[in-house]
Amino acid sequence: MNDKRPIGVFDSGIGGLSVVKAIGQKLPHENIVYFGDIARLPYGTKSVSTIKKFTEQTVKFLLKQDVKAIVIACNTITAVAKDVVLQLAGNLPVIDVIESGVLASINCEAKHIGVIATPATINSNAYSLAIHKLNPEAEVSGKACPLFVPMIEEGFAEHPAMQLVVDEYLHDLDDDELDCLILGCTHYPLIKKSIAKAIASNVKIIDPAEMSCELLEQRLSERHLLNTSSKLGTYKFYVTDLPMRFQEIGERFLNRKMDGIELVSVE
Amino acid sequence: MNDKRPIGVFDSGIGGLSVVKAIGQKLPHENIVYFGDIARLPYGTKSVSTIKKFTEQTVKFLLKQDVKAIVIACNTITAVAKDVVLQLAGNLPVIDVIESGVLASINCEAKHIGVIATPATINSNAYSLAIHKLNPEAEVSGKACPLFVPMIEEGFAEHPAMQLVVDEYLHDLDDDELDCLILGCTHYPLIKKSIAKAIASNVKIIDPAEMSCELLEQRLSERHLLNTSSKLGTYKFYVTDLPMRFQEIGERFLNRKMDGIELVSVE
Repeated sequence: MNDKRPIGVFDSGIGGLSVVKAIGQKLPHENIVYFGDIARLPYGTKSVSTIKKFTEQTVKFLLKQDVKAIVIACNTITAVAKDVVLQLAGNLPVIDVIESGVLASINCEAKHIGVIATPATINSNAYSLAIHKLNPEAEVSGKACPLFVPMIEEGFAEHPAMQLVVDEYLHDLDDDELDCLILGCTHYPLIKKSIAKAIASNVKIIDPAEMSCELLEQRLSERHLLNTSSKLGTYKFYVTDLPMRFQEIGERFLNRKMDGIELVSVE
Repeated sequence: MNDKRPIGVFDSGIGGLSVVKAIGQKLPHENIVYFGDIARLPYGTKSVSTIKKFTEQTVKFLLKQDVKAIVIACNTITAVAKDVVLQLAGNLPVIDVIESGVLASINCEAKHIGVIATPATINSNAYSLAIHKLNPEAEVSGKACPLFVPMIEEGFAEHPAMQLVVDEYLHDLDDDELDCLILGCTHYPLIKKSIAKAIASNVKIIDPAEMSCELLEQRLSERHLLNTSSKLGTYKFYVTDLPMRFQEIGERFLNRKMDGIELVSVE
């Protein structure tokens, strides 16, 4: 009844840390192993076969760390390689940000749903397919925003150029008709304010990380996999490259100190 | 006296196509094999050991294509992994964009030289070291501009946000005191106008690709390796990934149709 094994969370880079942060708030006693494929990011502009190959290598690495659940904290990977994760994970619970975002849009009874994300996520049609399974009548408008990730990673989230780029990408979304807009990339919560300025004020902005944590708690609880310790969980970060500003950017995402960063190779 | 073997040109992605374009203008009868490591770009924010490993795999691939010379059409690779290329290339001529940019700055008798490039190139100090070898009195000011590459690849070269980002990066260069500014990344010629607007008008802007072609012609000629055919050269493009817009962006760089694009793996 007290499972101390860590939760495995992974992303192509550091965007998934926004999901780690949300898990830490919801489930503070859980241990987390995070994997970020910094050496080969970004995935969002790459092809399906390349992303599937990278994902397979990553999940095999996480399984070696004896994780009790896997959180795909990356929309691009969920969109094009969730099947790879499910196949390798066997009986382990697998949570992903797309299922979470879609459930959140259902909860707010949205009829016309906007999705902004990387080109790989948008072109996969993963959000449309997942939304239409649960809500066949819904209208879905997707828009790829390839520059959001590099600009956020470069610290331009608050810069005037960021707002111009947000306006450029979002001006052709029919935001008057949208009920909600899903942030279909784990970096985007950091520019939520600029996004809110660019769209009509009645559009509800959905960050899938919140629902991801609810689903995670529910599935761990059902299978008696929760960590019932009263100590705060420990976090371990594995990355495939250590660029100069990794820790700085990561701490901005997490809003806490990052210790235990280790460089690994999964090729 | 008529060597039809191709010239091998490589880059982490497509920036090196600006060098291919310059070679095509200067040496129109030469055949070219281009290699772009699209699956793992960008290199500019990655660590030295990762870039060296990727470079070794690439050069081995080019040597299998029986190239007669190698052009490192990427400042980042030159800055951190030129030794890897020289070691593998043996007796083949190796041309790189940093040596070329430095020679061009010597030719214009610059005393205070600015360099803009990716973080990896700037942090390597490769330009300072190369300049001081030939011109020990020169003062060198370097500035990393990590967003230029993704914005250019995303078609924002002419967008108002581009000028804001250029202004942001260049405002703390002491441009009043510069004699020249080297474009230390093969993408940057596409935003030469925005760069010119952000700095003092007397600063000469140097694109190393031009000098690279002069050095290439000179070294091929010295070793009797020129292709003396009267037919236009043929180009072959090898890439490690084929994102949707690769051909579109590539043709914008080359300003000509790209045929013969082939997907390969070098891992």
